[in-house]
Amino acid sequence: MRKFIFKKISIVGVGLIGGSIGLAVKKSKLAGEITGLTSCKTTLKRAVRSKAIDKGTLDLGECVKDSDLVILAVPVTEMKNIITLISPHLKKGCIVTDIASTKQEVVKIAEQILPKEIFFVGTHPMAGSEKRGVDFATANLFKDSVLIVTPTTKTNKKCLNKVNRFWCELGARVVSLSPKKHDEVIASVSHLPHAIAVSLMNAVTVSELKFAAGGFKDVTRIAESSEIIWRGIFASNSKEIVKKINIFIEELNEFKKALKNTCKAKIKLKLTQASKKRSQIEN
Amino acid sequence: MRKFIFKKISIVGVGLIGGSIGLAVKKSKLAGEITGLTSCKTTLKRAVRSKAIDKGTLDLGECVKDSDLVILAVPVTEMKNIITLISPHLKKGCIVTDIASTKQEVVKIAEQILPKEIFFVGTHPMAGSEKRGVDFATANLFKDSVLIVTPTTKTNKKCLNKVNRFWCELGARVVSLSPKKHDEVIASVSHLPHAIAVSLMNAVTVSELKFAAGGFKDVTRIAESSEIIWRGIFASNSKEIVKKINIFIEELNEFKKALKNTCKAKIKLKLTQASKKRSQIEN
Repeated sequence: MRKFIFKKISIVGVGLIGGSIGLAVKKSKLAGEITGLTSCKTTLKRAVRSKAIDKGTLDLGECVKDSDLVILAVPVTEMKNIITLISPHLKKGCIVTDIASTKQEVVKIAEQILPKEIFFVGTHPMAGSEKRGVDFATANLFKDSVLIVTPTTKTNKKCLNKVNRFWCELGARVVSLSPKKHDEVIASVSHLPHAIAVSLMNAVTVSELKFAAGGFKDVTRIAESSEIIWRGIFASNSKEIVKKINIFIEELNEFKKALKNTCKAKIKLKLTQASKKRSQIEN
Repeated sequence: MRKFIFKKISIVGVGLIGGSIGLAVKKSKLAGEITGLTSCKTTLKRAVRSKAIDKGTLDLGECVKDSDLVILAVPVTEMKNIITLISPHLKKGCIVTDIASTKQEVVKIAEQILPKEIFFVGTHPMAGSEKRGVDFATANLFKDSVLIVTPTTKTNKKCLNKVNRFWCELGARVVSLSPKKHDEVIASVSHLPHAIAVSLMNAVTVSELKFAAGGFKDVTRIAESSEIIWRGIFASNSKEIVKKINIFIEELNEFKKALKNTCKAKIKLKLTQASKKRSQIEN
């Protein structure tokens, strides 16, 4: 029998990501026991029924009690409150990690609030979907995905390695970035595309929508994501996202200018560059 | 045995769309014979091997000779040249149709060039992919898709009905729009998203790209489409696309302003509106 990395894991927020972590941990037999918390009885029942967690509770203290690893899988906006509330219930030596899509704010809060004998490691799994809730959770969500870990000078090396190993076992490729660098990069490849998808949806009229085909659907798919989660992300990384929106608008204006001037060479160049670059990433 | 709608069909340009039409026609047994033309021997061999066409030729006159329906599935930029070249070889009473993504320019050219005894009907199948070539052609490409037919005052009603029936048999839902209205609507739901995907690809750096996950991939997928096809589309509908880019930039600027001012209510509203609207279209 394989040795568990963690005896007890707690997942605070058993939604799409939290639930998928639970399923993946069970599949890989990485923990002896998983306790999960959701915000209401109905979702808790679904979380237990999905077998993403062994035990479910609506009580935060009960959930994290005796845990070796506590995974915070709640919207960014709730992180401060949750960290404050779990703090007195954590076991000495426990590792706390989060999966939030912005890192500077969350890592700062966690390092300020959590007591010295609790070890915080910030992470961001680059996997997900526009779908919400544990019903869409899957054990393979993190296979071949990128997991960004965001250590600081305060991060305990041993605990960092343990968290890295945990994610590797779930199939992710672990990459380390500072919280600041993370927020810059992710503003480009995740937050900006989201702002674009949302704005495109809001820019077209309902009567035009019935002519939407594959291309439009692809570009706007993420606009259907959870408003609650994305509200928090946008608020906590707004400065960086504004910068990236400006860069994008500049680029789109250049394209527009080429169209206006019927500058065929420029249009060709823009299309060729984009196509070549896009072909470098896998679908 | 079912009665063919057309005895002989010619497909000028057996790529993804042309090839898919061939395969779908055969599956539905809508024609007695399909002749196809491509631009070189290698692609012609592939077209014949894929069984999208019965016979292949590199000679335009040979291809369209004795045809009851000629389908022009070439880039917009080549339409004028092709229509001029096939014109003297067409059988009296033959229907010519095209599948170009912009309609005002092509319909005008076709109605100007083609002789009186040839009947032109412009169409635009709202189906496709970022993939190119007959190797990606599939008989089911048009199933449950929208086919826009763009008749004018010059369009022969009987021939229009025949083309409508043809596309219905291939599984498409036929919607009729004027060429002008078509170009306005499609600028919103197809050309604008393409300009956005291309500009997003060009706005991000290569080093950021390794952190691209599902969302980014979805938004930029169409940026990998054929440069040749899209160059023509952008050139032939530039005015309308410029208008739509302006509307989009205005919307994105509103979103940016809400981020800058940390206007949570506005961000929430934008996200909720987009999500609700997006949920109205099928994936």
